[in-house]
Amino acid sequence: MEVPMNSEPQFNDKPLASREARLACRTGQITGPTANIALGYVQGNLAILPEKLAAAFLRFCQLNPKPCPIVGMSEVGDPRIPSLGIDLDIRTDLPRYRVWRDGKLIEEPTDIMAHWRSDLVAFVIGCSFSFEEALMADGLGIRHIEQRCNVPMYRTNVPCASAGPFAGPMVVSMRPFKPKDAIRAIQITTRFPSVHGAPVHFGNPAGIGIADIAKPDYGDAVSIQPDEVPVFWACGVTPQSIILESRPDFAITHAPGAMLVTDRRNTEFAIL
Amino acid sequence: MEVPMNSEPQFNDKPLASREARLACRTGQITGPTANIALGYVQGNLAILPEKLAAAFLRFCQLNPKPCPIVGMSEVGDPRIPSLGIDLDIRTDLPRYRVWRDGKLIEEPTDIMAHWRSDLVAFVIGCSFSFEEALMADGLGIRHIEQRCNVPMYRTNVPCASAGPFAGPMVVSMRPFKPKDAIRAIQITTRFPSVHGAPVHFGNPAGIGIADIAKPDYGDAVSIQPDEVPVFWACGVTPQSIILESRPDFAITHAPGAMLVTDRRNTEFAIL
Repeated sequence: MEVPMNSEPQFNDKPLASREARLACRTGQITGPTANIALGYVQGNLAILPEKLAAAFLRFCQLNPKPCPIVGMSEVGDPRIPSLGIDLDIRTDLPRYRVWRDGKLIEEPTDIMAHWRSDLVAFVIGCSFSFEEALMADGLGIRHIEQRCNVPMYRTNVPCASAGPFAGPMVVSMRPFKPKDAIRAIQITTRFPSVHGAPVHFGNPAGIGIADIAKPDYGDAVSIQPDEVPVFWACGVTPQSIILESRPDFAITHAPGAMLVTDRRNTEFAIL
Repeated sequence: MEVPMNSEPQFNDKPLASREARLACRTGQITGPTANIALGYVQGNLAILPEKLAAAFLRFCQLNPKPCPIVGMSEVGDPRIPSLGIDLDIRTDLPRYRVWRDGKLIEEPTDIMAHWRSDLVAFVIGCSFSFEEALMADGLGIRHIEQRCNVPMYRTNVPCASAGPFAGPMVVSMRPFKPKDAIRAIQITTRFPSVHGAPVHFGNPAGIGIADIAKPDYGDAVSIQPDEVPVFWACGVTPQSIILESRPDFAITHAPGAMLVTDRRNTEFAIL
């Protein structure tokens, strides 16, 4: 079943449990965005690299925990990540993948059975869905969800710490809030240090090198009211952006919005 | 020893322990501001009211915990507050008081032995010195301390919840920070919910009814750099402002900056 990438999630009215969601991906019933699917469960960004790059990438993630929080990784050549789901197979359990050669997109398959190799290592990196759930549970409105589009994301001039070939600027996601709600959002996301944590900036976009807030580099622009300020969080798109800039001879990522649904609960990642 | 209210604290080089500080107030050696005195110990705003107003005032404080965090109170007619200091005598242990009749300042004595009555109740209300210590310990610069003046304070258009005769707007204190440091300051002050806690606002002063940030209603103006935002905390001056607006027939407060030094440590008020 082919679903356009920006379509509404298929299971709005009856959220799937995480394992059911993965099975639906595996069997091709879900091939698009995973927003609103298996609510309550951690979703992750995917990065798969050959072993020879994996050590440097791991170092990169450890040096940049806010944009690159690793929530799970595989053994070399092993498509399983049992800590995220006992039956999880990273080759089939995402809705859609992107396969890259020398930094160029070559395919967007719904599984990567044909691309799997014994030297590959899979990294699952935390995603803001986890803290967005907590924000909404507290009554805060999230603009891109209200506007039914993707969160706006921007390349900044804030450099990540580099490791091996991996270097470049942080990507941030933006959510506008009234100052009072921004303060509450800072408190809430502080509780989730392993899924991006507190914001890295708020207010003047130029302060982190964003030239035009109306033109995100990824995702969709959202409205900002006069009494609101843009609040910027480190974004899990950062590692993907950094990987592609390093032009690795081979890499696989998730397709935008088509995340890995894990069996870990968002609340497990709250420190308080 | 008479010291002007805005002079430098007398004991910069050798901080007093809290009890020594109170004794120095009692014996008239300290008659001015208590900033930088007995570092590490909680200081408090003082409000003394006749019993017939005390119940409504207590209700007011409980309804408005951010500006009016009660850290201690006396029994009716009892000048002691043992929870804040075993030897504490509220009639003598502040550097300087203000005595009010019908909302008018009638005297600024260094003790209130002559004004004490068997129907008075003393309230000690938390103060931002407690969280400022934690901010500085984290390496954040506090502008009014750097500029060696009083924190700027502003009447807002944010109404307090009213109780009996006590009603009016919240007073806030302001400290400017770069956004990144403001986020850190929000995290740190969140740890101190019983001494004002997280900010109530940041950014546009008009958002809380402040017409001119350069003209504080209390304290001194401080500089704000182009890459900084003003961050506003609920202020312990609020209850004093509210009391005086209600024009009680009798009230006693501390003189500005001349706080009660208690034996409680600031760190006791951190929840994490």
